[in-house]
Amino acid sequence: MAKILIITGPEFEDVELLYPYYRLLEEGYSVEVAAPWKKRISGKHGYSVEPDKVLAEVKPEEYIALVIPGGRGPERIRYYARDDAVRIVKHFIENDKPIAAICHGPQLLISANAVKGRRLTSYPGIADDIRAAGGEWIDKPVVVDGNLVTARIPSDIPYWMREFIKLLKGG
Amino acid sequence: MAKILIITGPEFEDVELLYPYYRLLEEGYSVEVAAPWKKRISGKHGYSVEPDKVLAEVKPEEYIALVIPGGRGPERIRYYARDDAVRIVKHFIENDKPIAAICHGPQLLISANAVKGRRLTSYPGIADDIRAAGGEWIDKPVVVDGNLVTARIPSDIPYWMREFIKLLKGG
Repeated sequence: MAKILIITGPEFEDVELLYPYYRLLEEGYSVEVAAPWKKRISGKHGYSVEPDKVLAEVKPEEYIALVIPGGRGPERIRYYARDDAVRIVKHFIENDKPIAAICHGPQLLISANAVKGRRLTSYPGIADDIRAAGGEWIDKPVVVDGNLVTARIPSDIPYWMREFIKLLKGG
Repeated sequence: MAKILIITGPEFEDVELLYPYYRLLEEGYSVEVAAPWKKRISGKHGYSVEPDKVLAEVKPEEYIALVIPGGRGPERIRYYARDDAVRIVKHFIENDKPIAAICHGPQLLISANAVKGRRLTSYPGIADDIRAAGGEWIDKPVVVDGNLVTARIPSDIPYWMREFIKLLKGG
């Protein structure tokens, strides 16, 4: 069964993690969550998940696609496991595998130097960071640019996942 | 565009409302939320929704299907708008239209006298109520019995929605 990786950290935006997690299971994929450490992490709204993997031990070549939820998770990952996250994101970028990022998720695309010349969206509060890193920030519920599928906020989720699943199934 | 109705009340289980809400939008349906009153209601985890309709004003014949999330919403509905909820649920039962209920959602099926002789599941804490009302309670992630698609807890969501969408699309 094809495996998809979700990377996150404490204080993730709960529904931005739970929706793709359940949605990709619903679609028949195997889904694994990786975080800076193995013990249970909680979202901003109090939902919690037990990570399947520590970021340091992730072999990105095992996965067909990557999902990066928002909330404070991405910044926390920068603090606790930046180099592991950069290594993982670069694998998906360099191999042109699908990446879905929402809200503050694109912060890890910036860390991996992966937004230059790309069209994408994010939580509006980090639009300037996207631009400073050389990306073109677009204010739409979902932006698809090649393997990158990005969205802004939880209410964009239906449009974000619709495009991501289309991409997973070959466009 | 075919419309689907979600009925809920304060302290709903957040992801049991948000997942079907976003999922059915993703699938291209129009989705409306009805609650005992029009002002914004909050889930147990602090997500909030602004109801489109008050339960008293719902015309169930406008909708092709019904979703009943769990949490404390269903019991609150019994307190504030029981007769309206019963009228709505009965319409979907009598016309054999799809109903998805999860967790404490089946409490409203009990109120509408709709579980007698049916196979269904729910949050385990109300299994005895289902049995007392004449239903056969089954401990599985999802139980489909004709137009009724029921599930137990949030982690059943992928299997619950997969079966519900299959039913919406004609089995």
